[in-house]
Amino acid sequence: MTLRSKLKTAALLLTLSFTSASSLAEETYTLRLAETWGPNYPILGDTNRSLKAMVEKMSEGRLKIRIDSSNKHKAPFGIFDMVKAGQYDIGHTASYYYKGKIPNSMFFTTVPFGMTAPEQYAWFYYGEGFDLAQKVYGEHNMLSFPGGNTGVQMGGWFREEINSLEDLQGLKMRTPGFAGEVMSDIGVAVTNLPPGELYTALERGTIDALEWVGPALDLPMGFHQIADYYYGGWQEPSAELQWLINQDTWNELPEDLQEVLRVAMRTAAYDMYIQTMHESGKAWSSIQEDYPNVKFRTFPDEVMDALRASTRKLLAEMAEKDPLTKEIINSQREYLEQIRPWTNISDRAYLNNSDVE
Amino acid sequence: MTLRSKLKTAALLLTLSFTSASSLAEETYTLRLAETWGPNYPILGDTNRSLKAMVEKMSEGRLKIRIDSSNKHKAPFGIFDMVKAGQYDIGHTASYYYKGKIPNSMFFTTVPFGMTAPEQYAWFYYGEGFDLAQKVYGEHNMLSFPGGNTGVQMGGWFREEINSLEDLQGLKMRTPGFAGEVMSDIGVAVTNLPPGELYTALERGTIDALEWVGPALDLPMGFHQIADYYYGGWQEPSAELQWLINQDTWNELPEDLQEVLRVAMRTAAYDMYIQTMHESGKAWSSIQEDYPNVKFRTFPDEVMDALRASTRKLLAEMAEKDPLTKEIINSQREYLEQIRPWTNISDRAYLNNSDVE
Repeated sequence: MTLRSKLKTAALLLTLSFTSASSLAEETYTLRLAETWGPNYPILGDTNRSLKAMVEKMSEGRLKIRIDSSNKHKAPFGIFDMVKAGQYDIGHTASYYYKGKIPNSMFFTTVPFGMTAPEQYAWFYYGEGFDLAQKVYGEHNMLSFPGGNTGVQMGGWFREEINSLEDLQGLKMRTPGFAGEVMSDIGVAVTNLPPGELYTALERGTIDALEWVGPALDLPMGFHQIADYYYGGWQEPSAELQWLINQDTWNELPEDLQEVLRVAMRTAAYDMYIQTMHESGKAWSSIQEDYPNVKFRTFPDEVMDALRASTRKLLAEMAEKDPLTKEIINSQREYLEQIRPWTNISDRAYLNNSDVE
Repeated sequence: MTLRSKLKTAALLLTLSFTSASSLAEETYTLRLAETWGPNYPILGDTNRSLKAMVEKMSEGRLKIRIDSSNKHKAPFGIFDMVKAGQYDIGHTASYYYKGKIPNSMFFTTVPFGMTAPEQYAWFYYGEGFDLAQKVYGEHNMLSFPGGNTGVQMGGWFREEINSLEDLQGLKMRTPGFAGEVMSDIGVAVTNLPPGELYTALERGTIDALEWVGPALDLPMGFHQIADYYYGGWQEPSAELQWLINQDTWNELPEDLQEVLRVAMRTAAYDMYIQTMHESGKAWSSIQEDYPNVKFRTFPDEVMDALRASTRKLLAEMAEKDPLTKEIINSQREYLEQIRPWTNISDRAYLNNSDVE
């Protein structure tokens, strides 16, 4: 026996339609979404398809999303500009792609030696993260919402084992962004290449190493077939994608549809973190089974120490240039120092006592 | 410039109201929700208040939730029966409270030495977990959805340090449920006491140790004031609460409101995991600062080995009694064996290389 009050308001609507047209207006909204990724891109693209399905079903079609992949809009790294200009209503991208344009965008994706995904979500949603993101994006007439997390990204595929800091001197590695700056700072010859050329470059020795994502997205690239050493990550402990929303679009949505969109984004983002876990679990299991040549390694202490020191130095340089940068870096560092001791006595201690290897 | 098609269907509604009453019917539904927790219970109760707020805002009040706390319905562990009977539409509780009634309920909360929260969500949503849960609850005319995770629960508060398996023999400890059976099996004198008596019992030495949750919920109980040793967890690596929904209630909801409820539950459950991280980070930080007497410890290897062996033995006994139990245990074990190697080379390796202690 359920307690439901069935209130058929059809008759009521007929009356109201003459007195309060706005409350009656069944407007439909179609939001144009541009994603950095190509069509049917696994996991990252799934996240937008899942967002679309949830939003359209929850709103009974009153809120629709039309997804344009990079083959359509031709500007995978132009999402920021297109959403700012209102050419698209929403963009799905990684915040740190726009570091050249606004350095503070970087911090909402991930930072070397920073927070893990659950820690970073805690900072976003229960700490200062969300407000700081709006401060950064608000200046550009956009809202920014977490858009899905890859979890810990791997340190990369290396053809030779790294036993010392010396081994990295002049080593040719493809590793983009801030991690590339850090790698370069400790002596690596950092190069950048389009994704389509990576396999051949690594196979022919044009590069000695490369960093991509993690097993789920690395497996289809085939790197495990031509490199034996898979290194643990330090550079992107929790890469969070972003949905950027044009502020005018947001303001035009009625409150219920804003909430439908907000909640669907929040679920889809968390889901991507969990889906990546699942897919990486499967992919790493299959690599281990089919490619016994592949060995997991962590960098030696002297390499990790150098990477840490260089990260701190470069972040300190950024902090000096802009008070808001300093505020964000300090907020993240303080939050990490508060939450990590808990992660250490909970997850870390538990995993270190696990009997499943 | 946003692309929106504004389709004012007010006029259309007037026409349709005579031809298709069902599509017009603006029915409102009020779902009665019973929670195991008392009124304004932190975190666990917040999760229901957040669910209610999301659902009501997204549906513009077409779907309402009325929350009854345990002071109202007087049956904190009667949620299963009340929702099954349709006395309530939804219940918020922990599945393993009903192990006495249906042993298979246990596996959807947590299992000693089992999956961490992200691993378990991956099993629920992308592995076999969700379907297995419906198999178990479907027999009782209910659906079961994840209802929020506490993350790794701590092993408990001990007044004396545990240096050997011998130290646990006859030790009086409050630890309920399956973990209590395991503790009892290795020699602990397991007792159960109502929450309100725990502090005094520990202070007066009526018990030597107790297990509660983690820093966020332990701090208000004050155990850190009277026990020096806080042990790492093994027994509940990812306790997931559950929303149980009466199947008839669910069937009566239109598809859009089913989706509103499903997505809001999914977000609220993930949020509770993240909120607990946040609150435990703060609470552990404050305990460390104000109570330097409190020391974190992990049990010695021989204790952990005994706990593991006993857990396996008791699970094997359960598996023999029911093919579905066996199916669930095997599904969880196989999933864990697939995903944990990935967790080990990602999160575990990263945390072990952290410079934040």
